[in-house]
Amino acid sequence: MFPNRLKDAADRVQAHLDTVMTPMGDLPVVQAMRYASAGGKRLRAFLVLESARLHGVPVDRAIWAAAAVEALHAYSLVHDDLPCMDDDDMRRGLPTVHVKWDQATAVLAGDALQSLAFELLAHPECGGAQVRADLVLGMARAVGAQGMVLGQALDIAAETAPQPLTLDQITHLQAGKTGALIEWAATAGPVMAGADPAPLRDYARALGLAFQIADDILDVEGDAATVGKAVGKDADAGKATFVSLLGLDGAKARAAELIEQAHAALGPYGDQAQTLREAARFVISRQS
Amino acid sequence: MFPNRLKDAADRVQAHLDTVMTPMGDLPVVQAMRYASAGGKRLRAFLVLESARLHGVPVDRAIWAAAAVEALHAYSLVHDDLPCMDDDDMRRGLPTVHVKWDQATAVLAGDALQSLAFELLAHPECGGAQVRADLVLGMARAVGAQGMVLGQALDIAAETAPQPLTLDQITHLQAGKTGALIEWAATAGPVMAGADPAPLRDYARALGLAFQIADDILDVEGDAATVGKAVGKDADAGKATFVSLLGLDGAKARAAELIEQAHAALGPYGDQAQTLREAARFVISRQS
Repeated sequence: MFPNRLKDAADRVQAHLDTVMTPMGDLPVVQAMRYASAGGKRLRAFLVLESARLHGVPVDRAIWAAAAVEALHAYSLVHDDLPCMDDDDMRRGLPTVHVKWDQATAVLAGDALQSLAFELLAHPECGGAQVRADLVLGMARAVGAQGMVLGQALDIAAETAPQPLTLDQITHLQAGKTGALIEWAATAGPVMAGADPAPLRDYARALGLAFQIADDILDVEGDAATVGKAVGKDADAGKATFVSLLGLDGAKARAAELIEQAHAALGPYGDQAQTLREAARFVISRQS
Repeated sequence: MFPNRLKDAADRVQAHLDTVMTPMGDLPVVQAMRYASAGGKRLRAFLVLESARLHGVPVDRAIWAAAAVEALHAYSLVHDDLPCMDDDDMRRGLPTVHVKWDQATAVLAGDALQSLAFELLAHPECGGAQVRADLVLGMARAVGAQGMVLGQALDIAAETAPQPLTLDQITHLQAGKTGALIEWAATAGPVMAGADPAPLRDYARALGLAFQIADDILDVEGDAATVGKAVGKDADAGKATFVSLLGLDGAKARAAELIEQAHAALGPYGDQAQTLREAARFVISRQS
């Protein structure tokens, strides 16, 4: 069930991004936007569409929010890969934007992908005005200096810190860097339906942390060709990770525990949330 | 009248930015956000507040949009100054963000200033949900791959183009790079009031183009100490500008003509728009 739903979300969101980017022409910066927002697991889009389905939000409304979160995620990856940031040459098995084009194009394409995300959320077909304003406010907070950017800034600061981060510090960093946007995605459905987002927020918080722990495990155990980007970078850099702090077995146990928490949070949805349960298991078993 | 109103807008917007950024703490990325969004002429904030005043929008609502446009403008300057973009070391007489901190901080601070702009527009105190969604949609379009980013991308492409740009091409580039956001600012008042934005849109289009022509004139005639940034860069780089295409006198004549157009567009507002008329004259007489 989950693999089909994920594939379906990926196909739908790609088609929607293609449609909205068609009128933008073919300048290098637009080519780079298309390139950067193509592919990927589309887990965030899936979370939007699945949480929308659980709350009876029509897919032709939710698709705007799903495309928005993938555009936003793509911007964060393009900027994160820049030489002055993580300096990565490969992403999803392909050259990163600043390698394929240049740094200026990567900065601009990232900037335009961020604004595209807000444009999609504010589009009249995404929902009523109150829904759109709520989605924008939530996403802006998930990005800003108390969300994703905060996490990235802490990550960079950690590189030159005299001591490796503690478990609490890494958990705080992760909550911003990847957790905030995953939470936004998983709660988009109830927000669009005007329903209580608390159960899906709890689900997303556990899922987001498990996702990052799984990333750290992949960085140690994964194979670069399968993962699609360089591995072993964190260990080589002597950075504290969930694996360096908990050990490999401890990290795996913690991830499994979080998946149990994520499952428990879905209680109110009963059998309807089976696909989200599978998604949580997928997050810690994925190979890329 | 205009200098007082501009000063008043600058004071109000600075106070509002200070207030909204206080809870963000004191990480380098947040310090950089404060630094980058301090100072400047605040012409965009003035346009928001003045167009709001003309339409009876309370200043405690309009201030959110005024702060948003200045946060957005600040993001664009921080990224524009990066070594991979215009590579400027000085801005408003002070070191640019990547010089004072580093490039990673400049990329992140710019990213967070963009998301802050949308956060401010979507804030409940900025207006009703429909107003907020409209403001977000308009600003997202003013930024994206058919607005400011388009202009910046065309600007970069022009540097390696085999031939200098034509007058039409430069006008198109400018309409995106600086025009779209000036238009957003000048029409924010009618948008917030649910009124017809057409007269202020026409005003803003003439004003925006005059503003850029004045910039090109300053680049030739200005003094770096007064302007607060390097001058003569465009001429040294052999870039086509309004001055290189029209001559210095031709550029001044064109700017004066545009100011007449801007004045004419304000007809429907009668004497109420006196301050906007003065603002238009200021734009072509400014020394920085």
